[in-house]
Formats: sequence, structure tokens, C-alpha cells
Amino acid sequence: MGEAVLKLYELAGADAALRFSPHCWKTRMALAHKGLEAERIPWRFTEKAAISFTGQGLVPVLVHDGETVCDSWRIALHLEERFPDRPSLFGGAGAMPLARFINSWADTALSPAIARVIILDILDRVHEDDRAYFRASREQRFGRTLEEVAADRPANLAAVRQALLPVRRALAAADFIAGTAPAYADYCVFGLLMWARCISPVELLETGDPVFAWRDRLLDVFGGMARSAHCA
Amino acid sequence: MGEAVLKLYELAGADAALRFSPHCWKTRMALAHKGLEAERIPWRFTEKAAISFTGQGLVPVLVHDGETVCDSWRIALHLEERFPDRPSLFGGAGAMPLARFINSWADTALSPAIARVIILDILDRVHEDDRAYFRASREQRFGRTLEEVAADRPANLAAVRQALLPVRRALAAADFIAGTAPAYADYCVFGLLMWARCISPVELLETGDPVFAWRDRLLDVFGGMARSAHCA
Repeated sequence: MGEAVLKLYELAGADAALRFSPHCWKTRMALAHKGLEAERIPWRFTEKAAISFTGQGLVPVLVHDGETVCDSWRIALHLEERFPDRPSLFGGAGAMPLARFINSWADTALSPAIARVIILDILDRVHEDDRAYFRASREQRFGRTLEEVAADRPANLAAVRQALLPVRRALAAADFIAGTAPAYADYCVFGLLMWARCISPVELLETGDPVFAWRDRLLDVFGGMARSAHCA
Repeated sequence: MGEAVLKLYELAGADAALRFSPHCWKTRMALAHKGLEAERIPWRFTEKAAISFTGQGLVPVLVHDGETVCDSWRIALHLEERFPDRPSLFGGAGAMPLARFINSWADTALSPAIARVIILDILDRVHEDDRAYFRASREQRFGRTLEEVAADRPANLAAVRQALLPVRRALAAADFIAGTAPAYADYCVFGLLMWARCISPVELLETGDPVFAWRDRLLDVFGGMARSAHCA
């Protein structure tokens, strides 16, 4: 087959160069892992019309030779299935369900903890057309105002570091969650840290934390792709 | 080679038939997964002398043809390496590090949450010689009296159900954490639920919870081994 044509719709801030979605970061790392390049199209929360062809309203959206795939997890499965000769995202069929668990853990335990730290930074940096949508949808999710959610930053930061304990412990045995080399299980967690890195000046991690060193290793892979990403 | 001779030192309560350690349950499930039988030797927290030959003071301890292996995770690795022709505990080399993460998650996020619910039931059921040791070591770990730890049972129970969210979400896609059949990643989590089931009358799960149905499936595997275990 010829070279695949890939388009990736990514969440952008007011500054179109600011691509901060944690789920889009999972997909960017998955594409790089597979050695694939995609045209990256900036998209804002309220631009539902621009992705109405997908039948839903969230990014990432991958368009692969005209075929549309939504949701970062389904995109990872799609890439694994359609590019079987490239490096595996999972490291075998037995590992895929376990990576799915780690993705679920990241989205349900780690993501809300990080959100409490960075939520006002996100509000400041989304496009002005997105601001009312962002506030309303997130205040409904948390059941409080964003200012209340973010009020106790030291406690919120401590909760992030506490939530990372299973990662810290796993890294005592290997350089990456997936073992000696990174794979999708790493990107699931790393994507959430890139969300914070791109949108907020707050440093989530202490320099002596093994999670800090692991994040550094992932900032450096793929020619330093993540390290060179535009930050607010 | 001939039939392996296996001895497993297991934590027991005042009633020697009560084998409630979550880590020993991980090992029991791992042995059953490999189709192995072990002589199960009851052990109490304060019987350090009985396992002094291991150079440490915790169970599970597996003695395999005279070779001693401590710690449930290292026992799982040992069984996988030494019984490669039996069903795999991990489902491939790529899955082992991810199972290690899930084990770390279970021990750091789920275990303390369950402990808060059942801690006084454990205190009631350990051997009388173990009671002072148990109270002192656990009060140091929590930084509070056991009665304070256990005081708000409804909130503690809600926290367990909240902590199980990544399991619940993973089970939306497959019958087991490891996919279509159970493996060590499942036993890591299930072992903690067996801890509660054996030692406490409190039901951690609601009947409509997908985690409840998953636990039922694991209670039934290996001829209903876990379901028929002695409970307090």
C-alpha cells in the first residue's frame, strides 16, 4: 500500500499552537510510536460543526485514508490493527486488556486529581468562544464552581502526587510502565502530564520523584517531540 | 521432572481454617491457575520464628522443592518461570509489567480503602497472640487508632466503591481484567476482595455492580475454590 494519509483533529487553545488535550496527547504518542505522521488540525470545544461528520462532538478524531476513528482508545486499537508491522503499542494480545485498565485508571483516578490543579489555567487559555462552554460543562462535572474546585492548590497538588503512587512503585522495577521500553500504557499516563505541562505553569512533580525521571524519558523519545511542544 | 513439592505458609486467624491474607489469596489463585497443589501451613503474625529461615517476617512464603520464595509478586514470577508449560499467569512478556502496575494499584489505592472498612473485623478474628502486634502496626500505618480509622463506615464503603471505578470501567469491555479469561492481573484485585470476604460480614459491593459479577466469576473458577473458602 502507499503511504497512509492521516489527519488528526486536536483540541487547541486560544493560541492555535497550544495543543493540550490529554487524550490527543495519547494519540500523538501512539502515532509517533508507530512512526506515523499526521496532519494536525486545530479544533476548539465549540466547533462541533467541524467534526459533525464523526457523529459525535469530541476529539481526538483520526481520519485515516478517509476512514474516521473517534476516541483515543479506539484510535490506538485501530493503529495497532492497521499497522501490525510497526512497533506494537501493547506488546502482545495479552497486554492490551491490561493497558485498557491502566487507561481507565488514568482517566478516573489521575485525571480528576490533575484537573483540580490546572482547571483555572485551562479556563484562561481556551479560546474565548470556548470559555462559557468549558466553565459550564466542568462545573457540572465537579458540582462546584471552578474557583471552589481549585481553591486549595497545595492539597490538590498533594493529591496528584498521592494518586501517582502506583506509577512510582511500578517504576521501581523498570524504566517504563510497560517495562524496558515505553508503550501505550505509558502514553495513557504521560498524556495527562502533558495536558498539565502545556496549559499550566504549575510543576506537578518533585524533581526527586521517579515519576519525574520517567516523564523526562518520555519527553525525550521520538526526537524530543513532547519536550518541544508549545506550552502556555 | 517428578511432581513438584510445594509448601505455602499462609496467614491464619484465631481459627486456623480462616486464611484471610490478600497476598496469600493472590498466591493461591496463581497456584490454582498453574494447576498446582501446595501443602498449606497456617501461620500467625507473631510466629516470626517459624519463617525465620526466609530471612524476613511476612507471608506468603512458598517452599518449592526446598527453594524458598517470599512475596506474592515474586512467587508469581517464580511460578511463571518454573512452570512455563502450564497456563501463563501474565499472557506474555509484554503483559507482565502491566500486571505489576495493576498489583501496585491494588496495594496502594484499593487496599487501604478496604482496610478502613474491615480493620476492626480483622482485629476481632486474629489469634489473641497477634492482637497487640496487629493493633500497634496498623495504628502506626494509619496514624490513628483503629476505632478512628473505622469510625465512618458508610463513607469508607463509598470510598471502596469509588476506588474500584477503573475495574468497573475495564469490565465494560471484557469479562476479566485480563480479557476473556482471568489471569494474575485479576487475582491481584480479587485477592483483596477475598481478604474482606473471609474476615468480615460487610458486603463491599452492590449486587448490580459489574465488579460484583466479576467477583462471582472468580469465586467459581478452579472448581469454586474461593467460594468454598472458610469465612468468619
